[in-house]
Amino acid sequence: MSQTAEIGVSGLATMGRNLARNLARHGHTVALHNRTAKRTRDLAENFADEGTFVPAESAEEFVRSLERPRRIILMVPAGKATDAVIDEFTPLLEQGDVIIDAGNAHFADTRRREKALSDMGLNFVGMGVSGGEEGALNGPSIMPGGPAEAYESLGPLLEDISAKVDGQPCCTHIGADGAGHFVKMVHNGIEYADMQLIAEAYDLLRQGLGMDPAAIAETFTGWNQGRLDSYLIEITSEVLAHADAETGKPFVDVVADEAEQKGTGRWTVQAALDLGVPVTGIAEATFARSLSGNRTLRDAARSLPGVSGARLEGAAAEGFADDIEQALYASKIVAYAQGFNEIQAGAEEYGWTIDLGRVASIWRGGCIIRAKFLEEITAAYEREPKLTTLLTDSSFVEAIGGAQDSWRRVVASAAQLGIPTPGFSSALAYYDGIRAERLPAALVQGQRDFFGAHTYRRTDRDGTFHTAWATDDRAESEA
Amino acid sequence: MSQTAEIGVSGLATMGRNLARNLARHGHTVALHNRTAKRTRDLAENFADEGTFVPAESAEEFVRSLERPRRIILMVPAGKATDAVIDEFTPLLEQGDVIIDAGNAHFADTRRREKALSDMGLNFVGMGVSGGEEGALNGPSIMPGGPAEAYESLGPLLEDISAKVDGQPCCTHIGADGAGHFVKMVHNGIEYADMQLIAEAYDLLRQGLGMDPAAIAETFTGWNQGRLDSYLIEITSEVLAHADAETGKPFVDVVADEAEQKGTGRWTVQAALDLGVPVTGIAEATFARSLSGNRTLRDAARSLPGVSGARLEGAAAEGFADDIEQALYASKIVAYAQGFNEIQAGAEEYGWTIDLGRVASIWRGGCIIRAKFLEEITAAYEREPKLTTLLTDSSFVEAIGGAQDSWRRVVASAAQLGIPTPGFSSALAYYDGIRAERLPAALVQGQRDFFGAHTYRRTDRDGTFHTAWATDDRAESEA
Repeated sequence: MSQTAEIGVSGLATMGRNLARNLARHGHTVALHNRTAKRTRDLAENFADEGTFVPAESAEEFVRSLERPRRIILMVPAGKATDAVIDEFTPLLEQGDVIIDAGNAHFADTRRREKALSDMGLNFVGMGVSGGEEGALNGPSIMPGGPAEAYESLGPLLEDISAKVDGQPCCTHIGADGAGHFVKMVHNGIEYADMQLIAEAYDLLRQGLGMDPAAIAETFTGWNQGRLDSYLIEITSEVLAHADAETGKPFVDVVADEAEQKGTGRWTVQAALDLGVPVTGIAEATFARSLSGNRTLRDAARSLPGVSGARLEGAAAEGFADDIEQALYASKIVAYAQGFNEIQAGAEEYGWTIDLGRVASIWRGGCIIRAKFLEEITAAYEREPKLTTLLTDSSFVEAIGGAQDSWRRVVASAAQLGIPTPGFSSALAYYDGIRAERLPAALVQGQRDFFGAHTYRRTDRDGTFHTAWATDDRAESEA
Repeated sequence: MSQTAEIGVSGLATMGRNLARNLARHGHTVALHNRTAKRTRDLAENFADEGTFVPAESAEEFVRSLERPRRIILMVPAGKATDAVIDEFTPLLEQGDVIIDAGNAHFADTRRREKALSDMGLNFVGMGVSGGEEGALNGPSIMPGGPAEAYESLGPLLEDISAKVDGQPCCTHIGADGAGHFVKMVHNGIEYADMQLIAEAYDLLRQGLGMDPAAIAETFTGWNQGRLDSYLIEITSEVLAHADAETGKPFVDVVADEAEQKGTGRWTVQAALDLGVPVTGIAEATFARSLSGNRTLRDAARSLPGVSGARLEGAAAEGFADDIEQALYASKIVAYAQGFNEIQAGAEEYGWTIDLGRVASIWRGGCIIRAKFLEEITAAYEREPKLTTLLTDSSFVEAIGGAQDSWRRVVASAAQLGIPTPGFSSALAYYDGIRAERLPAALVQGQRDFFGAHTYRRTDRDGTFHTAWATDDRAESEA
């Protein structure tokens, strides 16, 4: 049984099990290990017809069963559990062996672990995997970081099991140490923003136009034929068309309207704050989930004064559904532009070389935000790899140019109708902010100099200046 | 010279020097210490007429000069410098002595330090001080945390030198360990939001109505007579009325429109994300500063298509300045409500007992956000100490009830005019979000269950449910 397995998977809950089966189905011999051995045996027995598994009862046996250099995928909960299993394996490994953390680690932890293992002569690969259980089994989008050398031996295996679009694998080496987990984190942040925007579009169709879920499902099906063609729009349509088996009511009406979250949206915003990159779309989406889940607050606030039950009628309603599609598309471009800027800033800060066009390209399949739209992003970065923002790429300039009257109409109407659209309106504010000739930030700098002598710069020459606000003459001087 | 000083200050840059002078002016004998002794001597010599200083050349001499229990205020840069000076002093101190960190420490560092010093039998007080150099000298708002016992001996001294409003000191014991620095952090976050809202109001008056800075200064002076009466509105008026000495142009037009920041806004948002409290106003304000400072992005985006130079005219312009005042006031209430909710959540998470009404009360003087408006907040918490949100207090319900038509008009007009108002619009979205009968978060939960089997709850009974989306019957079951 020794040294026969090409790769091993430790941690055999659903995600780990499905990754192992995916590898086996592609003809790779897979060593199996789990904290409790029953899961290992069950997997090897139940799916024996899918490929070759080498079940191991102990870490030692598991390690012995692997070809060298050994490749061990960990799929265990992020945090202490990951550190514990790494500590268990490292004494058993030899120079050049590769540990792959496929869990949802924070990129800072991945950077720390990569440093520690590289000091021991081991390769550590922090790997983002998107696509949920289904993707893990049938082809996820895979975002491995870590040393480029490790990708040489590991890459072919990963590309083999990843999703494919137009024959291309949805897997690429993202960059050194934490780059893979960082990009996966931003992927999830973008996913939050995208879902929030879709939710706002639904809310506007429902409340603003009085459409029922079934009709809205059809609208989304229609949108899914065009530039919004994506997995999330597709499943939105499915969810909205679904009737609850028990009550016969529209499914969306029997679901509690309190969105949950597992933390990657929050991480994305926190990292963006550290990097100084405005990701307002992701922030609003993350906060909107927290707000929805705060039952105490919502119960207290339910009777606050405001517009209620207002909807557009007649001429005002005419074309409004199309306006919403335009607003959704424009806001989505902004959300993705912000997310890609965060990746760009992260790469600069942490010394990663990340091909942004490739990132968009491997998100086209396997993952939750897979969409036709991502091809536009890849094309934009192919035209100009150092693009400052996606918003200035010609295709997006054109799209937003055409969308913006509708977009402004939707944001304005939502404010008047009392329908919350934090995603649409913050995206528009960002767009109007970055294109502004002058921003009122000049006043903010003036205030800061007034109360805190924080100084300011001038528009007409270089230097740092301070005004003597407390004196009678209030003279300006170079600070 | 031994044991004659009531209190000592170590770190004599501007803030430390001014605090020391403030103490001396109030008749307290102040020991002085600084890394370089020249500053110590200069202060003792130059301000000898203001009170009694005891300059010390070394940490040992400084400690020896203090009455017991010793009280040492540190005013050194946050981070490593603070740890270094704490490490220098602790071996010289005895049980019951008090170290007060008056710098801008992160509350998590304060919690760590308090724990370490309390284990040594020393008292550690993390103390927020707001009001800048001017406040430090003439009366700041002071937010001390740490053990209640330490406040017994320290409080009278601090209250003595703090700002006074209606004879009440702007200083109170906030709560244990990091509570003082936490509250100071949120104070600064609220300050970011408040300044952003004022900046948006200015921008709307300027661009939307075509008013010049001098006329807008007068408008703000008028607003300062009413419910917006506050230090920030007052200085806004001063800044806008000021003409640059060199060019004769309005000062605000010669200042570079790139707002800077020192990090407490970012901290406030990051902490709120950890606590799950939506502070969208502070987040948008923090991101707006980053956006304004990103010259590369703004230069690239300047020529993007959009509305430019549009303004309201005739009947549409009529009353719009008043609408802006209403929108500013309503958005400000939201920003403060969010900030106070963050303090409430922080207190719950970290085990602090914080009197929110008292917090509002000590911000009435000395600090940057001092305002008449804070009296309303104190009154609200006096009426109902466990208030879920300030927005449901009767006085604010009435204010927002009266303001909201204007508020909606302003947000809608800004979208149409192409003027970015991330603060106003996110505040409105938050308000409409918390009062919504149903939120589209139900759809988000449906999507999450579809792609990740994350389950959902129902509106009609308890439990956690999952729909078998991948199967033909899509049956619901308890998860």
